[in-house]
Amino acid sequence: MTESGPLSTGESVRHACRNGEWNQQTSGLAPGFAQANLVILPQEQATDFLLFCQRNPKPCPLLDVTSPGQVEAAGTAPGSDLRTDLPGYRVWRHGEIVEEPERIDHLWRDDLVSFLIGCSFTFESAMLRAGLPVRHIELGCNVPMFRTNVACQPAGGFRGSLVVSMRPLAPQDAIRAVQITGRYPAVHGAPIHLADPAAIGIDDLARPDYGDPVPIQAGELPVFWACGVTPQAALLSSRPPLAITHQPGGMFVTDRLDESLAVA
Amino acid sequence: MTESGPLSTGESVRHACRNGEWNQQTSGLAPGFAQANLVILPQEQATDFLLFCQRNPKPCPLLDVTSPGQVEAAGTAPGSDLRTDLPGYRVWRHGEIVEEPERIDHLWRDDLVSFLIGCSFTFESAMLRAGLPVRHIELGCNVPMFRTNVACQPAGGFRGSLVVSMRPLAPQDAIRAVQITGRYPAVHGAPIHLADPAAIGIDDLARPDYGDPVPIQAGELPVFWACGVTPQAALLSSRPPLAITHQPGGMFVTDRLDESLAVA
Repeated sequence: MTESGPLSTGESVRHACRNGEWNQQTSGLAPGFAQANLVILPQEQATDFLLFCQRNPKPCPLLDVTSPGQVEAAGTAPGSDLRTDLPGYRVWRHGEIVEEPERIDHLWRDDLVSFLIGCSFTFESAMLRAGLPVRHIELGCNVPMFRTNVACQPAGGFRGSLVVSMRPLAPQDAIRAVQITGRYPAVHGAPIHLADPAAIGIDDLARPDYGDPVPIQAGELPVFWACGVTPQAALLSSRPPLAITHQPGGMFVTDRLDESLAVA
Repeated sequence: MTESGPLSTGESVRHACRNGEWNQQTSGLAPGFAQANLVILPQEQATDFLLFCQRNPKPCPLLDVTSPGQVEAAGTAPGSDLRTDLPGYRVWRHGEIVEEPERIDHLWRDDLVSFLIGCSFTFESAMLRAGLPVRHIELGCNVPMFRTNVACQPAGGFRGSLVVSMRPLAPQDAIRAVQITGRYPAVHGAPIHLADPAAIGIDDLARPDYGDPVPIQAGELPVFWACGVTPQAALLSSRPPLAITHQPGGMFVTDRLDESLAVA
């Protein structure tokens, strides 16, 4: 895959998904374009979910929300079709996966609302460009994620604990990472905690609740960012009659440039 | 002292010093105006000292440097007179204090170069405005400062270890402090280290090399900033024939607003 290759822009990735030419993870595709988590809910649950995201902006930074029934993410990807433009979907009924299709035309309804939630790929790219190590990328595994004892602000039926991702960094790199990722509040922003896992209810860094464990080297601190798994966990624990999400790692690739999300 | 009082601006503090009406510390005076450390050297040493500051910008952020013989800090305080506008001075010969006068007219020479170096008061004000605790201010003592095992980049005869100031903060406050103080690179900027004192050669936080010890409460991390004592220590260890500095705590108050030093 090259910069000028067929999957080098958000639009080209979306079209490849739509045409059945791409059904894999999107990490590394369309470098420089922001990718997003997808949550689709019937309007009956969507209002409370919108409120949940508004009240918990660090784990749930909303890049775009559609009007009911609208299939285009008009704010971040004009011309897109959220029913076809991701590599794959998970369909949940009452909190259980019932189907994992590559498109969801057959499920579409006029009352479905789509939420696009910022993704850590954007701030990880910024860390890499600044020469900071990102351990799980070095190792080619998933970022380790942990449930904390920090309660999210509830909204309607949506409630749950903050989920964090962890990246180990030497102290001076942790300081630099605060400055760099703090520039991107639309994609989780600055870390929420560092150094002391027990203070946020994490007992064992070697046993993440999601993703893969990564080693912490001598002199490194664990640094914790609010994670987009938070809204998914809150969503599924409420067991709504229908929810549709992206497949883990297979994101919606927008037309927004990562750098357009930087505040300074 | 009120905002509209006689010592509420940089100019009013400088005039009070000049007229013999103020010879005390300047902490708390002229709120919102940046204060600066002063170092005066003969031109023969000044070039190497300028190079030392340029090579070590975190401990030695230069706000202003005069031309040889110039008594006005034209860049930061038009109309000022560096011979009279501080509460008091220390005169060093070959690294020893020989005089502590309230003005230095009698010592002035056409080859003297004045360096104004940014001071932590600016970023501490920003921390307080953001609701972050600053322990030594709460306790009414001096900030604790420590020599580290981190070598500065030498220049000519000037060499030495980085000196840091330490402020204890809870992890989430430390993250916020990185973001807030990082906005002020002209006054030491973001911390250089946190959490692990031994990693930078600090054995005992209860025994600072300069200033006063402060307690670190349960759950707090020590956070370390590069400190303006660094250039003074490097200067004095080189034992120049003549050097003139401010009295500790009695700074040069400029016309620059603290907020004008913020980069974002």
